[in-house]
This record gives sequence, C-alpha cells and structure tokens, in this order.
Amino acid sequence: MSNVYAPLKNDTFLRALLRQPTDYTPLWLMRQAGRYLPEYRATRAKAGSFMGLATNPDYATEVTIQPLDRYPLDAAILFSDILTVPDAMGLGLSFAEGEGPRFAHPLRDEKAVLALREPDLASLQYVFDAVTQIRKTLNGRVPLIGFSGSPWTLACYMVEGGGSDDFRLVKGMLYDRPDLMHHILNVNAKAVAAYLNAQIDAGAQAVMIFDTWGGALADGVYQAFSLHYMREVIKGLKREHDGQKIPCIVFTKGGGLWLDEIADSGADAVGLDWTVNLAKARQQVGHKVALQGNLDPNVLFAKPEQIHAEVEKVLTSFGKPGPGTGHVFNLGHGISQFTPPESVTALVEAVHGISRRMRS
Amino acid sequence: MSNVYAPLKNDTFLRALLRQPTDYTPLWLMRQAGRYLPEYRATRAKAGSFMGLATNPDYATEVTIQPLDRYPLDAAILFSDILTVPDAMGLGLSFAEGEGPRFAHPLRDEKAVLALREPDLASLQYVFDAVTQIRKTLNGRVPLIGFSGSPWTLACYMVEGGGSDDFRLVKGMLYDRPDLMHHILNVNAKAVAAYLNAQIDAGAQAVMIFDTWGGALADGVYQAFSLHYMREVIKGLKREHDGQKIPCIVFTKGGGLWLDEIADSGADAVGLDWTVNLAKARQQVGHKVALQGNLDPNVLFAKPEQIHAEVEKVLTSFGKPGPGTGHVFNLGHGISQFTPPESVTALVEAVHGISRRMRS
Repeated sequence: MSNVYAPLKNDTFLRALLRQPTDYTPLWLMRQAGRYLPEYRATRAKAGSFMGLATNPDYATEVTIQPLDRYPLDAAILFSDILTVPDAMGLGLSFAEGEGPRFAHPLRDEKAVLALREPDLASLQYVFDAVTQIRKTLNGRVPLIGFSGSPWTLACYMVEGGGSDDFRLVKGMLYDRPDLMHHILNVNAKAVAAYLNAQIDAGAQAVMIFDTWGGALADGVYQAFSLHYMREVIKGLKREHDGQKIPCIVFTKGGGLWLDEIADSGADAVGLDWTVNLAKARQQVGHKVALQGNLDPNVLFAKPEQIHAEVEKVLTSFGKPGPGTGHVFNLGHGISQFTPPESVTALVEAVHGISRRMRS
Repeated sequence: MSNVYAPLKNDTFLRALLRQPTDYTPLWLMRQAGRYLPEYRATRAKAGSFMGLATNPDYATEVTIQPLDRYPLDAAILFSDILTVPDAMGLGLSFAEGEGPRFAHPLRDEKAVLALREPDLASLQYVFDAVTQIRKTLNGRVPLIGFSGSPWTLACYMVEGGGSDDFRLVKGMLYDRPDLMHHILNVNAKAVAAYLNAQIDAGAQAVMIFDTWGGALADGVYQAFSLHYMREVIKGLKREHDGQKIPCIVFTKGGGLWLDEIADSGADAVGLDWTVNLAKARQQVGHKVALQGNLDPNVLFAKPEQIHAEVEKVLTSFGKPGPGTGHVFNLGHGISQFTPPESVTALVEAVHGISRRMRS
C-alpha cells in the first residue's frame, strides 16, 4: 500500500494530543458525520442502509468529509461503526430501521463463547479501504482518526445482542462466569489491537478507543474487565508509522471516578464526559496525558450566546494550556441527530475564537 | 391523626443512618417490593394497574410488607411512585403496560411552566393514608422509609413527558431558558418538602430523596440545578417527629464525583451507586454522613457463592464502622424484576452474617 500522502496543513489536533503548544484549542465532534446534517441524510438515502453506507468506501469517504466542508473542524474521523469487529467474528450484525444494532448470534452460553475467534482482517478490508480513501481525499487538510470499541463495550453488545439499559445478561455472565467473560475480552483485545493497527497501516493518524459502557461497571470490576483490556490493546498498538507518532485516545463514558487509573493506561489522551470538572482533571493527570472534552451535547439546543458562554466555561475550566499539557475540545458524547446545524457553527467559532484570545 | 405506634423492635437501620453503633450492617433494597416477587405480581394483578396498586392503601400496605415476610430486611419503604407529585400538579400520569410512565401534559413552553403550582396535598392523601396503614401494620417490626423524587429528577419527567435517554428537552430548556428551569425547580422543591413532611406526619421514620437523573448533568450544572434544590428541600424538612429523629438520605445516581458537596447537603446519609469505591468515600465524608450502598444489582444473577463474595467485598471496602460512621447496605439501584428471589435470601444472609462476624 502506498503511504505517500500530502503533508498535513493543520496538525493542531495531533499537537494537542501530544501535549505540544498550539495556537488555539483544536476541536472535533464525536459523531460529527451524522444525521443532524442534511447532506449526510441524503448520502444515507442513496446507500439504502446504515451498513450500506459504512461498507462502501466511496460513501464512507463522502460522509466523513461532509462536516469538514461545513465547519473548520480540526480532525476527521473515519465513518464506521464500533460493531464491525464482532460482525466480522460472525455474530451477524444488522440495524433495524429506527432501532439500534442487533446481533443474530449473540454469545449466550459457554459453547458460543469458547467458539469465539479473532476475525479474519480480510473481512474488514472495506474499513481499511475507506481509511485510505478518506486520507487521500483529505489531502492533508486535517488528520484522520481511526477508532474501535473497547473490548468491554464490544462484549456488551456481543452478549446482550444489542443495546441494553441494565446490562443484565453481560453482567450476569461477568459475575456468574468470570472465566467466560475474560475469554471474550481476551479475544476482543487481540482483535481490537489488530484492527486499529490495520487502520494505522491504512492511513489513520490517531486512534481512539470508545469505552462507551465502561462506566456501567462497578468500582474494581471496571479496572479488571474494561481498563485492563484497554491497556492490553494499547500495549499492542503501533505508536509510530512512517516516522509519525500515532497518538491514542481512550474514552470511558462515566469513567470520571477512575481518571487516575485511566491516565496510567498508556494512552496519550483521555476523553472526558461533561460530569468531570476539567480544572480538577487537569491537576489530577498532570503531564501524563492530554484531555479531550467535555461539553454536554445538549448545550447545542440553546441559543448562540448560551453556546458561547458554555464553551467559555469549558475552556476557562481547563485554562490556558501550559508546557506538557494539551486540550482537545469535544462534546462529552456523540452529537444529537436533532442538533440544529447552525449551533455547530456557533460552537466552532466560540472554541476557536475564545481559545485564540486566551493564548494571546 | 393518632401517632401512637408500637415501639421499634429493630432500630438498626435508623442507628446506622445516625452513625450510632450497630451489631451488624442493616440492609434494605431499593424497589424491594417489586416484580421479582410472585406475591407482588399477584397483588398487582388484583389491583389491575400500577396506579391502582399505588393509590389503594390496602394494596400498598400488602406489597410493602411482602418482602419483609420473606427476608429479614431492616427497613420497609413505602410502596409508591416518585411521579405522584407531578401527577397531583395536574400533569396527568399514566403507565402504559410494558412501558414507562407518561405525562399527558408535559411542560414544554413558558405558559405551561409559569402555570405550574404546588399540588394540593389533599390530592395526595392516598399516599399519607398508605404510610399510616403500613406503619400500623409493621407494628414496630422495622422502620418505615418515606420518599420523593428530587426536584431535578421530577423536572426531567415533567418536561420530557416520560423517560428519556438523552434528556434533550429538559436540558435544552435548562441551557436555553435557565429562568424557566429554575421556576420549575423552585415549585418542585417546595412541593417535595411539603410532601415529605406530610409523610413524616403520617408515620414515616426516615425519608429518602431519589435523584435518579442528577448524574446526567454536567459538573457545575448539577450543583446549581439539582443539589441546590435538594438542599432547599432538606432545609424545609422536619428533622424530628414525636421526639424521634427523622434521618434523611439523598441519593444521586452517578453522583460519585460530587460526593464532597453532596455530603454537605444537610442530609444524614448519602446513597452511592456501585461505581464508587466505598473505602475512599468513607474517608472523604469522614463523620459528616452515613453511607448507603452499593452492590451492583446484577450480582444477584450469579450463584450464592459469588453473591457472598461480592457482598464481602462491599463490606470489607467500607470496613468495620467506627465511632461516628455508619453503613447501610443496599444495591446501587433498584432490584431487577428478573432477579431470582433465592438470590435475595443469599444476599441478606451474607450481609448479616459477614457484618456480624466483622464486628466481633
């Protein structure tokens, strides 16, 4: 694979992750390529289905670039789904219209668990092709983020068979048969590391591990069943490619109580949700990691002046980044499909404007 | 109203809340009168509907006592719903079969918000009658807990019109029209204080404020829009009745990051979910408050030996209560309707047995 890409014109995001000085606070938004954009909905309609969109590199490239054409965001993120990996393991992913993801073959008994194998990466070639095509299309505009679900978060869907509000089946297995849960998580950790490395080979310039459901775990259990396996993933990651550092971000939603331990996971940056006080978090992590976050996405339902005021609170809470610290602005969760696109304009202007002013 | 009740035979729960020495760690379970019990389902079937059950003091008494007849729990809790208060405000509560609560008249605009009034307590007489009847029927067996939703948690349902997974409408109003949100919360705080005081007058021996959705708020916003109003409620509470102290418990699910501030709310005890490390929490709150919690309810899907081991972890994490400290064992959330009733037997035996041994 040819890795001759155009040089980066805007490396602010990568610099912030690596805790190097920047002229302003870079930002991107989780789920920035999504249903709140009419152009996304148009491409989605052409593709026919969510998986039709995600598995076609042309479409995936198109929707990945759309938010960048509208807003001066500082990073692009591969358009895909965290459940591509379990799908490639043979669990049979589908998305019913208006509902969440479903697996036809969830892991519900010992036999199914012990039969679980790492996927053949060839079956995920559509993802790597999308990464390469997006990177080429970006042409150095901003860096491209690759991503995966965390071993635990994938396990939640793999055992529950879909979304859950109580995690009864997956936690039931965890408490009743911890041996089976560790087996799943071991397989997932190896698969996730290989999957992220293949994205890096294909052109991803940073990677992020989404531990969406780590915060549902009990203290002690989180460390053993989620954080431990993210650490294993991080240990297995390529941290450099083509002479460039590849920063890694971990994000446990609801993981604020475990920030000290997450900051020791080996990642370069830690994502935070809106429940965390950024000033305290910065003090807690010191020079170990950069921080990413943490505006409540519901702020985007307010007027531009309120958005500006809330952005200012976040930026002031982190404060002016000093030597060895870094802040990437983001929401604390994916942007809502009901967000007015104008709100994002106000958000981006506020983040860039206020943070430039704070540094001068 | 006659307040001549039989003396308490088991005051372990009240003593632990007031940080007085106890022979063992008392326990009760959130939602202990519930669908996991076949006898509850039988009474529910007789009553015809959830509200039929909650509004009839005979039925409410019957189901409140059921778990105590099965397990040697250390407290009873009024069987009711947190949404009785907004229902009495005229929002029109209903429960569709198999779905959550619904309000026919949610607060969606300025006009609806400004028309909101504290309810006439007479329309909640069925709740106070149930309290008195339960207290009489208990005949001093264990103390009776009264409860209410927190002002913020009630507001979530009142604005959303039912459950929500993103709180888009209520947070949208909070960020866009904080004046309207404060108006709702002011009315709610007064209503909740009056409602809890009427429960105390009717016979409740402790009260608990359920802030189920406080943990959905951003840092800073939680303090201003949830904790502040719980403090107002607590300020307005009767703390003694008939010469007995009436302890007050606050529980913000997902509020672990704000424990210091919650411990300063004026409550006697703070409920904790399973994400919190009890040893650290105990150190943090010192002698200010007792702690209540915090087993993951999903532990009850494991075998008795695993339940025993997980209970031991919780009790060991808190440690032997010393002078001026107190621990009430509970789950970190309501018990699941799918819980095998035998698991609760194992739980109660483990909590009582291990905690007695730890004190000797």
